[in-house]
Amino acid sequence: MTDPSQFISKRAQSRKSSHFANVPSDAPPTGFKPHPKPLLLSYGTPNDGFFPIDSIDVNLVNFPFEHQSKHGGHLNGHKEANGTAKSGNNSLHISRHTDDPKLLDLSRGLQYGPVAGLGPLLEFTKEFITKTHKPAYSEWNSILSTGASDGLNKACDAILDPGDVVLVEEFTFTPFLKFVNNVGGVAVPVKINLSKESDGLDFDHLESLLVNWSKENPSLPKPKALYTISTGQNPTGYTQTVEFRRKVYKLAEEHNFVIIEDDPYGYLTLPKYNSSRFSSNNKVDPADLKNDLTIEEYLSDHLTPSYLELDTTGRVIRVETFSKLFAPGLRLGFVIAHKKVIEAIQNYGEVANRGASGLAQTVVNNIINDKLGGLDGWLNWILKMRATYSHRKDLLLHSIYQSEAFQKGLVDVIDPKAGMFVTFKVKFLDPAEGKVASDQVVSAMKQLLWKVISHGVLVVPGYNMTVDQKFSLERSNFFRLCYAPLNNDEEIIESGKRLTDAVLEFHNNGNKF
Amino acid sequence: MTDPSQFISKRAQSRKSSHFANVPSDAPPTGFKPHPKPLLLSYGTPNDGFFPIDSIDVNLVNFPFEHQSKHGGHLNGHKEANGTAKSGNNSLHISRHTDDPKLLDLSRGLQYGPVAGLGPLLEFTKEFITKTHKPAYSEWNSILSTGASDGLNKACDAILDPGDVVLVEEFTFTPFLKFVNNVGGVAVPVKINLSKESDGLDFDHLESLLVNWSKENPSLPKPKALYTISTGQNPTGYTQTVEFRRKVYKLAEEHNFVIIEDDPYGYLTLPKYNSSRFSSNNKVDPADLKNDLTIEEYLSDHLTPSYLELDTTGRVIRVETFSKLFAPGLRLGFVIAHKKVIEAIQNYGEVANRGASGLAQTVVNNIINDKLGGLDGWLNWILKMRATYSHRKDLLLHSIYQSEAFQKGLVDVIDPKAGMFVTFKVKFLDPAEGKVASDQVVSAMKQLLWKVISHGVLVVPGYNMTVDQKFSLERSNFFRLCYAPLNNDEEIIESGKRLTDAVLEFHNNGNKF
Repeated sequence: MTDPSQFISKRAQSRKSSHFANVPSDAPPTGFKPHPKPLLLSYGTPNDGFFPIDSIDVNLVNFPFEHQSKHGGHLNGHKEANGTAKSGNNSLHISRHTDDPKLLDLSRGLQYGPVAGLGPLLEFTKEFITKTHKPAYSEWNSILSTGASDGLNKACDAILDPGDVVLVEEFTFTPFLKFVNNVGGVAVPVKINLSKESDGLDFDHLESLLVNWSKENPSLPKPKALYTISTGQNPTGYTQTVEFRRKVYKLAEEHNFVIIEDDPYGYLTLPKYNSSRFSSNNKVDPADLKNDLTIEEYLSDHLTPSYLELDTTGRVIRVETFSKLFAPGLRLGFVIAHKKVIEAIQNYGEVANRGASGLAQTVVNNIINDKLGGLDGWLNWILKMRATYSHRKDLLLHSIYQSEAFQKGLVDVIDPKAGMFVTFKVKFLDPAEGKVASDQVVSAMKQLLWKVISHGVLVVPGYNMTVDQKFSLERSNFFRLCYAPLNNDEEIIESGKRLTDAVLEFHNNGNKF
Repeated sequence: MTDPSQFISKRAQSRKSSHFANVPSDAPPTGFKPHPKPLLLSYGTPNDGFFPIDSIDVNLVNFPFEHQSKHGGHLNGHKEANGTAKSGNNSLHISRHTDDPKLLDLSRGLQYGPVAGLGPLLEFTKEFITKTHKPAYSEWNSILSTGASDGLNKACDAILDPGDVVLVEEFTFTPFLKFVNNVGGVAVPVKINLSKESDGLDFDHLESLLVNWSKENPSLPKPKALYTISTGQNPTGYTQTVEFRRKVYKLAEEHNFVIIEDDPYGYLTLPKYNSSRFSSNNKVDPADLKNDLTIEEYLSDHLTPSYLELDTTGRVIRVETFSKLFAPGLRLGFVIAHKKVIEAIQNYGEVANRGASGLAQTVVNNIINDKLGGLDGWLNWILKMRATYSHRKDLLLHSIYQSEAFQKGLVDVIDPKAGMFVTFKVKFLDPAEGKVASDQVVSAMKQLLWKVISHGVLVVPGYNMTVDQKFSLERSNFFRLCYAPLNNDEEIIESGKRLTDAVLEFHNNGNKF
């Protein structure tokens, strides 16, 4: 195996872990015997008797949107007037002390904890990855983060020195560019293939960039890493097939770069749009929202393998988060990579923020390990989430497909295989097909965006999510639609209607506001 | 007023705040009308209907260690066999939705939130500082952090460019040195005066360093900042008087440096040791643990003013935390400084970790604003904390004062005016008094530490908390004792006994293990 130490930045290599209050690491004098019950006057840790919280009860729902559907509504229905429903006996007690090794109590959760994360939850992330995306080598490890952004920032710190190049999908989660910039790295865009059946990332462009690198970029070192959102890509929604990933991983071996795989919502796998689910009044049968997959079917037939599963040389850094599967406000996620990379991330964690909130870790750990019953219980919750997202995605597509704008061929959408984003293409503003000059596409899309906003729907224009706006002009005639935030079915249908109405009006007005 | 922009590092100045999903900031076209009820297909924020938690009940104690004292014990008594006591009706309900503007609900607390912190809690920190340590100018601001370490790391990032010098108390919270190192700064130690009545920081040394800087350090720029733990200093426990702070602030104005004031436990003000509280069997009357101060007495007569209160030019950065007053596992704190410094910290927060857990913010905010009744309720909780710490401090001193080692003059302690640390001086290993050679003090203290450990008590040696071990040899013959972690009165008394027994034995054995 290649030694993954070669990937670690000089900055990260120079850091060491230490604590001034630890027992000395040098050899004790002859005759020294450890005391059976030492008393601590060392660490500045308040006794848990100082904590004002004695215990916490967490009241759970059984499925997403349950609180909206108490009175016979469907899973994704209207909000009720007074919000919160009683959850009956579906609640979890977190006490000050517990002896169960799988659970966390407040004396640990509210205390200072290890930067890497508290034991039971850290172990759970390893169990989870072993079941879902097991790396193809053994020396991997996990570390908790305060969410995907924190994980990505720490991954950048771990491997990028000033001047190092990282390849990035041309349309991307742009905060990543701040993380690259923060360590003096250089982000270089790789094209995305925006055709109907696509893996997203343009393999031919990626390969030609790498093969011709030294010739075409004499002043830049060869890329140290590729950053990819390989499943349900943000903003385009594309998912790379496993065959495609094999080809990319082979390139990584040949050209010796790291793959930073960002996967915040890849577990939300989505079946193809199916019109037969919708009745003539746009309603969907609530029965369709039931999860009808077993965990084994989900893992073997629906979930796309991670780059981790192809990794034999410890060059993949996978960044996960609990934000989309549980809740963003926890500020909780984790990173899986070779143990030397994880060690570098941990040493940076001692500088930058000291890890995730123990309160958030305790609540999530105990919900999973106590209330849901562990790994399979967590996977069952994920299945319920994907069923709800799948419904929302189809509802939005359905609303768009029924529109005059779509039926006249003015717009198109990419049906995503995972995640929470749909690419909404404005076909009459396609510079690649000569419908508008390349240097005019952003200004035309800006005018259209104002029209869309005036119709009462907010979307993200592709040109706002570029590594280099100029580089991507030919492919910037799209909006990213996200079906995650809206409240209910009616709003989703209405949003598709408003959007397509706005586009039609803009087009009928000669591509003017 | 000097423009505090001059203090901001080039790195921090180059960062900008932005979000790709925000509504365009340029002017809308003629005829544009905003829609009254826009629907969001823009942000990647899951609807709160996806959150598995419907509500949370937090069960509180009325005073520290209440759970140990349910059956007539005193505040700092034995742990009960099965830990958690029922808190009766002293509990707080956090629902999915609330309309109360002072409270947070789960739809906000579990959602993505502003990097600076959620509104009500951020407002509370400003109210709190206005009451306790109001800055002497108006353009200050607050930002939440994930604890003091995060606040300090971000403060370093905000003001230090590579090569910039920061003056640091020679014995200090050494993780700060990692934060300095992380941005390429240079830490230079300032002596601490370890005499009985002292402000800690050695003013004469500080002044002479500054006055002679260019002559004695031709290769280093003049210091950009002073880092000081000015109240209950870590590790020495000293507190600077307000007169002393005025002199230091004057130096800061003259030599134009920033003061980074780290104050994690300064609110724990401690009265002088009073032997009359202890009966012959070492027990203290539980009545003595009652807080007998009013909030006004506490604020006017007990709490030492912060550097903020002297600051007229926006050069003080005050770093606070909820770790010691509430619980460390929250990972929650805040920073108060000039609004331009806070803006720089916020822009770094968008890169490094995106701020504190919304769950922790929600729990703390609602405990304070709902259950405790706001600012005065929080101050009342602090008064209960300080009464308990005061008891613990006196108990530890009492145990040491009664020892043979103390009565023979082998050791001495510094009675702290605030915080959680006591300096425990080993007088027969004092290099300044010629009791041991300077180059032997660390090895002698190391041998003594092993003896202390073998007696069953863990302490932190001063030499482990230096900026530069060599620089501080003359003053390294002490241990830091922390009375925060132990479980009860008996353990505190026993720890003092074990420590002094160990020292006596070491001394009687000819300063050998």
